[in-house]
Amino acid sequence: MRHSRPAGTITAVPGITAGHWTDADSATGCTVVLCGDTAVGGTAVRGGSPGTRETDLLDPMRRVDRVHAILLSGGSAFGLAAADGVQRWLEERGIGFETPHGRVPIVPAAILYDLGVGRADVRPNATAGRAAAYAASDAPLASGSVGAGTGATVAKGLGPAGLVKGGIGSAYCTLPNGISVGAAVAVNAWGGIHDHRDGSLIAGPRRDDGTMADPIGVILDGEYPPSEPSMTNTTIGVVATDAGLDKAQANFVASSAHDGLALTIRPCHTTSDGDTLFCVATGRNPTPVNLTAIVAAATHVVALAVIDAVRSATGLAGIRSVRELNHGIS
Amino acid sequence: MRHSRPAGTITAVPGITAGHWTDADSATGCTVVLCGDTAVGGTAVRGGSPGTRETDLLDPMRRVDRVHAILLSGGSAFGLAAADGVQRWLEERGIGFETPHGRVPIVPAAILYDLGVGRADVRPNATAGRAAAYAASDAPLASGSVGAGTGATVAKGLGPAGLVKGGIGSAYCTLPNGISVGAAVAVNAWGGIHDHRDGSLIAGPRRDDGTMADPIGVILDGEYPPSEPSMTNTTIGVVATDAGLDKAQANFVASSAHDGLALTIRPCHTTSDGDTLFCVATGRNPTPVNLTAIVAAATHVVALAVIDAVRSATGLAGIRSVRELNHGIS
Repeated sequence: MRHSRPAGTITAVPGITAGHWTDADSATGCTVVLCGDTAVGGTAVRGGSPGTRETDLLDPMRRVDRVHAILLSGGSAFGLAAADGVQRWLEERGIGFETPHGRVPIVPAAILYDLGVGRADVRPNATAGRAAAYAASDAPLASGSVGAGTGATVAKGLGPAGLVKGGIGSAYCTLPNGISVGAAVAVNAWGGIHDHRDGSLIAGPRRDDGTMADPIGVILDGEYPPSEPSMTNTTIGVVATDAGLDKAQANFVASSAHDGLALTIRPCHTTSDGDTLFCVATGRNPTPVNLTAIVAAATHVVALAVIDAVRSATGLAGIRSVRELNHGIS
Repeated sequence: MRHSRPAGTITAVPGITAGHWTDADSATGCTVVLCGDTAVGGTAVRGGSPGTRETDLLDPMRRVDRVHAILLSGGSAFGLAAADGVQRWLEERGIGFETPHGRVPIVPAAILYDLGVGRADVRPNATAGRAAAYAASDAPLASGSVGAGTGATVAKGLGPAGLVKGGIGSAYCTLPNGISVGAAVAVNAWGGIHDHRDGSLIAGPRRDDGTMADPIGVILDGEYPPSEPSMTNTTIGVVATDAGLDKAQANFVASSAHDGLALTIRPCHTTSDGDTLFCVATGRNPTPVNLTAIVAAATHVVALAVIDAVRSATGLAGIRSVRELNHGIS
């Protein structure tokens, strides 16, 4: 499958800016995607162990019809505090949902578990969230062991000794009708990573002899320890588009975009993955919505973002990345 | 990825029998999976255009905690009538949920749209559902253009002239701890079919010159007609296991098993696909539940069932199958 479309990251979507806050020493961080004050949001929580904030209001039945930013954060449930800082940053700029007593910024958020990498007692807080919002720009979003992907890891099917560094990645495409679709995904999966285009294994759980195992195979063939994996995972991300989606459509795109995770993370959506995706639609492009095309594009960019995350990652806190492993650095 | 596990179909799961009713002349049919009187059920509806019956009671909040059969049917929403006949067959055998005034058989059902293939005015009815239940056995379930897969088609990204025959498929595996997991899936997708193990295209929309297009590529590269596809699709299936899942776990497995569709059907879960999966757990195997392993196995067998469906299909009503296309029959 070849697709010759513009390279780019989620910030190539008109109206979208994004920024990271990274604490490499403590191996945690957060990422903020700012989407102006006209964006409609949706979400889909698919994993067994999610950590989220402001997801209920994204239901099409609920009243609030705008989101102002999405926060992706490390730090497990503690990391939800980083949204406080994003709200403060937005409030200072007068951005928020109009209420009788001031504008209230709407910042849906999801976290991933990285307490087992680096320091467990340092997590993204309000200051970190504010810093990520402050850093946001329309420059290409950095990939790898930064932002919400700083402490991310993958391929845990053979235990902690065999895991591989995860990270955050991004991808972008335009549809023939001019609609932009981009994604940023922080990949901290229990499963391993495949390239769905040729089925090849990018990051599988590493055996003692250094070889990588097929991450589904270790379960089906019995290499996998029989107990349930611990809840140290979760892949989180944002799909952004300039299409004029309504809330129900934004939720549908968030739901179907999980197929991009399913294509590349194997197995995905386990009990110990709190996999959560958001969709934000700025509505800047008046082209009539073709939801099937947007679903296909969203799946495509989410899958490419996962691959980018793991291929761009660099080793941290003693955990090696595929980049290092492929160059024989041990 | 190699997995050397027992070949088989969903009927290899202890306690599960299945049967088809096929009307090849009218190009429709239905498939019934019988699961005894101890099975727990769950479901996940992911597509944009579902047609279902008795799915609400599968919510873990609802009271009824047993299902007796699952019906997969062609005939669009009309095909839900086939569940009447499955209920009657079960009632005659005294199988059902105990109530003060008799046992009520619980038969969750989902349909696919096949009215555009063969005759539109013939659809599975109560007699058809009863016949499928009557035909159920523990023999390997037949694959291809039979049962709910009789009128199924795939790869519609270039319009009606370019589609390829779909069907119903099945697969089975056992986990190292002895748990059985099987699936039966009727594949009537808007998307094309890939083998996720090597990324190869099995069934893509056919161009006028006979070549198959990449089904995501036709959207991203602009070969795809700009309008939304019509609602003539939907992939439906059942995952069965002998594990002792509770209702919440059965719903979780049904949800994550959609990853098996995502791996092989590209794009999947579009607005015109009513993709719905059920999970039934007979509880016959007392081995403690390892939900992550069951999720991985469910994803695996669903993906293999999709591939089996399309590879086993035979041409019908002027629509050619990959088997025929690969042998130059036109």
